[in-house]
Amino acid sequence: MPRYALGLDYGTSSVRALLVDLDTGAETAHAEATYAHGDDGVIGDPRDPDIARQHPSDYFDALRVVGPTVIRKAGAKPHDVIGIGVDTTGSTPIPVDQAGRALAEHAEFATHKAAHAWLWKDHTSQAEAEEITARARIERPHYLERCGGTYSSEWYWSKILRCERTAPEVFAAAHSWVELCDFVPAWLVGERVPSKLARSICAAGHKALYADDWGGLPDAEFLGMLSPGLAALRERLRTRAVTAEQRAGTLCQVAADTLGLAPGIPVAVGAFDAHLGAVGAGIKPGDLVKVIGTSSCDMAVAAARDPMPSAHGLSGVVPGSIIPGLLGFEAGQSAVGDIFAWCARAVNKRDLDALARDAAALRAGQSGLLALDWHNGNRCVLVDPALSGVVLGLNLHTSDAELYRAMIEATAFGARVIVERLVALGVPVTALIACGGIAHKSPLVMQVYADVLGRAIHVAASAQASALGAAIMGAVVGGAFPDVPAAQRALVSTPSTTYLPEEDNQAVYQRLYPLYVALHDAFGTAAGRRDLRDVMKELLVVRGAVRT
Amino acid sequence: MPRYALGLDYGTSSVRALLVDLDTGAETAHAEATYAHGDDGVIGDPRDPDIARQHPSDYFDALRVVGPTVIRKAGAKPHDVIGIGVDTTGSTPIPVDQAGRALAEHAEFATHKAAHAWLWKDHTSQAEAEEITARARIERPHYLERCGGTYSSEWYWSKILRCERTAPEVFAAAHSWVELCDFVPAWLVGERVPSKLARSICAAGHKALYADDWGGLPDAEFLGMLSPGLAALRERLRTRAVTAEQRAGTLCQVAADTLGLAPGIPVAVGAFDAHLGAVGAGIKPGDLVKVIGTSSCDMAVAAARDPMPSAHGLSGVVPGSIIPGLLGFEAGQSAVGDIFAWCARAVNKRDLDALARDAAALRAGQSGLLALDWHNGNRCVLVDPALSGVVLGLNLHTSDAELYRAMIEATAFGARVIVERLVALGVPVTALIACGGIAHKSPLVMQVYADVLGRAIHVAASAQASALGAAIMGAVVGGAFPDVPAAQRALVSTPSTTYLPEEDNQAVYQRLYPLYVALHDAFGTAAGRRDLRDVMKELLVVRGAVRT
Repeated sequence: MPRYALGLDYGTSSVRALLVDLDTGAETAHAEATYAHGDDGVIGDPRDPDIARQHPSDYFDALRVVGPTVIRKAGAKPHDVIGIGVDTTGSTPIPVDQAGRALAEHAEFATHKAAHAWLWKDHTSQAEAEEITARARIERPHYLERCGGTYSSEWYWSKILRCERTAPEVFAAAHSWVELCDFVPAWLVGERVPSKLARSICAAGHKALYADDWGGLPDAEFLGMLSPGLAALRERLRTRAVTAEQRAGTLCQVAADTLGLAPGIPVAVGAFDAHLGAVGAGIKPGDLVKVIGTSSCDMAVAAARDPMPSAHGLSGVVPGSIIPGLLGFEAGQSAVGDIFAWCARAVNKRDLDALARDAAALRAGQSGLLALDWHNGNRCVLVDPALSGVVLGLNLHTSDAELYRAMIEATAFGARVIVERLVALGVPVTALIACGGIAHKSPLVMQVYADVLGRAIHVAASAQASALGAAIMGAVVGGAFPDVPAAQRALVSTPSTTYLPEEDNQAVYQRLYPLYVALHDAFGTAAGRRDLRDVMKELLVVRGAVRT
Repeated sequence: MPRYALGLDYGTSSVRALLVDLDTGAETAHAEATYAHGDDGVIGDPRDPDIARQHPSDYFDALRVVGPTVIRKAGAKPHDVIGIGVDTTGSTPIPVDQAGRALAEHAEFATHKAAHAWLWKDHTSQAEAEEITARARIERPHYLERCGGTYSSEWYWSKILRCERTAPEVFAAAHSWVELCDFVPAWLVGERVPSKLARSICAAGHKALYADDWGGLPDAEFLGMLSPGLAALRERLRTRAVTAEQRAGTLCQVAADTLGLAPGIPVAVGAFDAHLGAVGAGIKPGDLVKVIGTSSCDMAVAAARDPMPSAHGLSGVVPGSIIPGLLGFEAGQSAVGDIFAWCARAVNKRDLDALARDAAALRAGQSGLLALDWHNGNRCVLVDPALSGVVLGLNLHTSDAELYRAMIEATAFGARVIVERLVALGVPVTALIACGGIAHKSPLVMQVYADVLGRAIHVAASAQASALGAAIMGAVVGGAFPDVPAAQRALVSTPSTTYLPEEDNQAVYQRLYPLYVALHDAFGTAAGRRDLRDVMKELLVVRGAVRT
């Protein structure tokens, strides 16, 4: 009798389900369903480009499609599935009632955008994020050490504080706020009460200032300084968060009916997509896994240490957020594929593939261009959303393909800055593994990364690394493997493709990298010349003044 | 009986002839002829983009077309023309034989590119220019004060030294080297012997280190330090240069036959096109005339002073180079229209007019972009050809029209830097007059200039200001007016269009300008942060290494 684990991967525009054969490691079947609401899965607002929401009911409706489809495509029987894992985007908090149901499931809040899920890339909370950072810098500096020195507008507390200030009726009606990666497993197992549902340490630790060594949740006094409402909310949260190979519970009847499976199947605690993507890419100590799509998420694991290493300039360090028992480091670049798409479509009006062909014919350094990949701010290591992109070295012969290649190189230089920061923080990086859409679709980008980083880049075998990582957690909670590394050894194939540095280009990039760092530091750090550093900020202030 | 002056304007791609009615000031007729050789008037070399030459025979062949055409179109008789003036591009030196004939008119040199005219925009002599600058900085620092602090690769001695080093057979065969703006009048009057032909102070002073107060030509000792060949060449040059309202001679029979005119007509000493463009735009003390085309040339005049003011950061200061009796200041931007064309065609693949329409709908500061207009280096005030263009403030929503507008704004900021330098050097600038193609064809550019400069921009009435300026010199040597200002009063119409600053945009640009200056100084001056300043240079070094 075959045994399968089911991985459910909640991405920005769709849900993917992957059924993995636990005996052969084969990815037997997958299915995908888009969300019913929004534009390509995201509910925006033409008046405010920072708004990005999703309707919580879509998360369950999509399961009705992908569950039965994937079972049917695999020719599996409901009882063949022995465990389920879930990953989602994040931080994507959802306001819920006392029973843990989304407020948006109530008729009066069904179309209220503040009652929707606040998608990871919602950037409305910048002022609140700055306030939390400023307050923590004075009152709780150790909180910031775990999240790279800056609390982000993309994260849990920023968004909830924003809701309290701009949609107080939603904040008042919300009994609690639940991360999407907890919301889905809670529904699957039928235990949705906010103070009781299984809470992911991946989500809590990286984005909600959770750490066991300060007692879990951020303290009530600190939250109260931000708002009495946040301090009160703290009382209605589950106090302890756990790793993703733990059981959230077992599949309840309603969820089993929706998925077309049998009730009682163990369901793992959720985690973020990038973290389980790293698991599905086979991460182990010494590896850096880059999940490269519209943006990049960079993942590394290392043995626990005392004291906990600083995550300065990273997105965070959380024990067990990727592999239980190991420290999980998260970093990332706020735009990668997004920059390429912008360059090809908005500026050059050319097909991305055609542009890539021309760009691939160029040699490193040939264009005389140097760019900063900050078109969507800088996530790591500067942690500054108010930075912007730069292209330097333009002349009257600069071609579109040169510009395009400079953008690729800029993201590669940005990747190198992150690798060097990890190493400086004591996180060894001996192998680089890429996964995500860009890794599988763009040989040019991967080759430039190999050349710029001066290392082999291995492309993960699975094109669905996050879903595979979720399935691995399902396999572990289902008892098929004793732990995550054992499941990885059985289920993760060796990399499909490896890009080796091309010697000449590598030597050129070795010369260009210090120039990138010079620009990077001049525009992004206090060590840069002061009046230059203010240029981009001032531009944003002026732009804001003009647009109002 | 009508009286006309003929202006002959030798541009980069064609010769234009303009017949001006001296009694009414009307531009009665004009004619244009392209050069027979080269691509759009320029002989290049696919192996070296820095090469830009012209075939000297084209200069006379074109006269056979434009002379008779303009006479016929005007319905004029040969004797109605009472004076002829000439302007040309420059510095465009031509190697000649003892009789003053171009070497290229000899069969053995007819196709030798080094024996052609070295067009102003030939940039092969960068190393020689740097050597001349370095040598003068030590040995003759006063030479550099007159030419902005840096001797250019576009100028006379750089090109001749380059020829000696790379085409010694041409250098050896050349008896002397004659500027195009002297070469044409010499042929018209039939006095071509290099040591005797009328020499333009405009050309000599701005580009050949000529100044009456150090005895005219640069001294033999200094030239000998560069090369014994240059010191020897000095002996075969006319020692004295004069202003353009002086007679070079009278029209000889051969030239009269070519033009379809009568012999004996007074011919003025030549001058550069931008300088006579300023005359044709009505320049007087307090005016800055910007001749804006692919690049810009900026002209101002002021009363002579003792000591001569410094031209630091300008292209030069020469007594009488524009208006006899007044100091002539030359500055400029190395790319203006060239940047717009590059942005529209090479990058955005859009029609320039369509892009301009979209860009005109944007408000100042709206894009959050800031650019440096150094795509072809910086002519003034940094005098550094190794600088390159920058765009800063890019984000994922940046549009092609925003980029385009940022390029226009960058050239306007660059124009403001020049105005401020002139004022700082004690040259009053109370009115701005624009002429050239961009001035007449692009209301958007002119409006942005008015907004950025915070001043009214007057567009010169004549679309052929250089040819008009040449005709004015012809009118003065023909005796129709006692001096140039009197001829200007009679022949230059009041500006056709005036652009006034739009208050809101002006206020925004007032905020953006210091940011432009911060970038400008950081990348272009020693006051900037040292490692940042090296970025562009180093990129060029790497590019050069990769391309070889």
